[in-house]
Amino acid sequence: MQFQPKQKAAPTLGLIGGGQLAKMTAQAASQFGCDVVVLERNQHSPSTGLASHYLVGDWDDPAELLKLGALVDVVTLENEFVDATSLAELEERGHLVWPTAATMRTVQDKLGQKQALADASLPVPRFCDTPTAAEATAAGDKFGWPLLLKKRRDGYDGKGNVTVRSGIELAAAWEKLNGDANALFAEEFIPFQKELAVMITRSQHGESVMYPVVDTVQFDHICHIVKAPAALPDAVAARARDVARRAVEAVGGIGTFGVELFLTSDDRVLINELAPRVHNSGHYTIEGCVTSQFENHVRAVFGWPLGSTALRAPAAVMINLLGVGPGPGEPFGWREALAVEGAALHIYGKSPSARGRKMGHVTALGETVEAALATAQRAANCLRFGNA
Amino acid sequence: MQFQPKQKAAPTLGLIGGGQLAKMTAQAASQFGCDVVVLERNQHSPSTGLASHYLVGDWDDPAELLKLGALVDVVTLENEFVDATSLAELEERGHLVWPTAATMRTVQDKLGQKQALADASLPVPRFCDTPTAAEATAAGDKFGWPLLLKKRRDGYDGKGNVTVRSGIELAAAWEKLNGDANALFAEEFIPFQKELAVMITRSQHGESVMYPVVDTVQFDHICHIVKAPAALPDAVAARARDVARRAVEAVGGIGTFGVELFLTSDDRVLINELAPRVHNSGHYTIEGCVTSQFENHVRAVFGWPLGSTALRAPAAVMINLLGVGPGPGEPFGWREALAVEGAALHIYGKSPSARGRKMGHVTALGETVEAALATAQRAANCLRFGNA
Repeated sequence: MQFQPKQKAAPTLGLIGGGQLAKMTAQAASQFGCDVVVLERNQHSPSTGLASHYLVGDWDDPAELLKLGALVDVVTLENEFVDATSLAELEERGHLVWPTAATMRTVQDKLGQKQALADASLPVPRFCDTPTAAEATAAGDKFGWPLLLKKRRDGYDGKGNVTVRSGIELAAAWEKLNGDANALFAEEFIPFQKELAVMITRSQHGESVMYPVVDTVQFDHICHIVKAPAALPDAVAARARDVARRAVEAVGGIGTFGVELFLTSDDRVLINELAPRVHNSGHYTIEGCVTSQFENHVRAVFGWPLGSTALRAPAAVMINLLGVGPGPGEPFGWREALAVEGAALHIYGKSPSARGRKMGHVTALGETVEAALATAQRAANCLRFGNA
Repeated sequence: MQFQPKQKAAPTLGLIGGGQLAKMTAQAASQFGCDVVVLERNQHSPSTGLASHYLVGDWDDPAELLKLGALVDVVTLENEFVDATSLAELEERGHLVWPTAATMRTVQDKLGQKQALADASLPVPRFCDTPTAAEATAAGDKFGWPLLLKKRRDGYDGKGNVTVRSGIELAAAWEKLNGDANALFAEEFIPFQKELAVMITRSQHGESVMYPVVDTVQFDHICHIVKAPAALPDAVAARARDVARRAVEAVGGIGTFGVELFLTSDDRVLINELAPRVHNSGHYTIEGCVTSQFENHVRAVFGWPLGSTALRAPAAVMINLLGVGPGPGEPFGWREALAVEGAALHIYGKSPSARGRKMGHVTALGETVEAALATAQRAANCLRFGNA
């Protein structure tokens, strides 16, 4: 079908990237009557069916970004890897881009992000730049071992990070991350008691709303289970929310942001990482909160008032559905999972399945986290993508 | 964008009609990773952006229906006016159509529908066929005046009905409905105390789930406010649900059906009308129930287990947003409405506005119907489509 402008009931949203985050953002936008235009590298993506117009192209190419910009009122993104210089070019041509190119430039360089947070006196693990392997070894001797060695750019879900147990392993880690070609930095290893996350939406007018602090359970560095609210003393939860809010302000974030936090054994809250976008740890908000992280992102980028982040039930739990191996995008156990009362199933429509690929998720609400977890787990246990 | 089949994660849904009911059904299907193909007469409709493939064509034309059928796993519909003979042809060619052509044939003839319900010993107002104006006058003399004179086909939202106050007015009513060209029938006028509705989803396997009985408030024969649950004695609510369930069974309905009921002043429950599709009186289920009427429709037509219809809060209220006159599809008062905490706004994306056109709706949940109504009303009062 050809794209033909019409008299519009609502502004048009431009999304860079067409994965599941774009899909769920597009669903939220469609409720408001917004058209959505997606720029995506692959011809098929989870958002294909939800886009009024779907551009296949390289999102780092300013010419492709300008094509997108010409069709929409606001450009936003579903991943942090879009080249900030290309985004800046889009802004210079008069297009609205949220979050801004400047925010993206700060956040996508993980060393720069840490520095910006430290400059704002926010609690972060100790870190330092390590242009050479010798400097990384010196960092380990200073911060203690194990040490985290990280790529400054393009890491996600644990890819681009190595935990180095001792100086002897440093050379191998340096080689694994190709430190001679990739800029690396070192970070103190935090023996956390919990990984927490907070979703925040911040509007262009400086208004911000915060979602509950959640417990996240990771396997293999991939977010696997999210429990809302986190089991925390009120004072710690308040501190986590305050730190998260200030972190998003520190990078001038506009839109929905995910803030990943460590809770140390002595109840300190440290910022692990900012995601300048809707985030896996906020998927539970679709059913779990009055306004989802996706809807609030849409509200924020269009400059509209933000919605309530209150939980709709005492507790909500989300479980990711990861591919266990190659196979079709259609899960095994679909009927059995649908028969689990109270479990909301989200299938992203990706195909094929691959080991570790995020294929969908399940959310359940409950009177307690334990009850919600039991429901979500019952449904998730029915489902399998691919063959191990 | 060209339509290209891919390895699918979920079956493809075919929708006849692309209005707001199709849009909300498509949103529910997309959560399951389903592609959606829409056949619609107009190039732009609320579902345009949600369809993987969008066919513009006449849905009464068997050739167009076959094009749709070829692209999808199951065909369903968002209105009751699709020609049943054309649907039957689609079935004969081996396509799955839910509800079936036979059900649609029964339901879309309002006299045939009433007869089918009466044959199943279900409570309906007295009615009779009136091939001539003289027979209509005789019906009034028998049932009493006022009398309802109705077109057997193609009526909706009060269009196609006339309330005839006395025999003197009969000729004018007959002419207004063009009774010489259109088949008409007569129905006893019911001085109801309330109009109720029940949404029901029935699967191919005979499993059925019922939503709460709701109060509907109509202005000018158009559903305007829906309050869930209806303020009713338990016994009356149980009777209403029982009648509604048996009505859908009586026509062999598969998928989600709306059953409109009258509650008489002496607490009798009479069936006003069946809608063989998702229905305006069930929009509140998107936020209000664990599983929406749209999601359960998708589950039913694909033969999947049905989901819980339990309310997520003690009460939910929906208010329709009707155009007050001509103007853009974008509402006035958008920001003010979004600032009303707890109000979920749905804008269908229609343009332009016209007087009485359904442009969107608002839903709010609450501890009581009164509280939910107040929230929904506060948001609805901010919004205006078009100029009076």
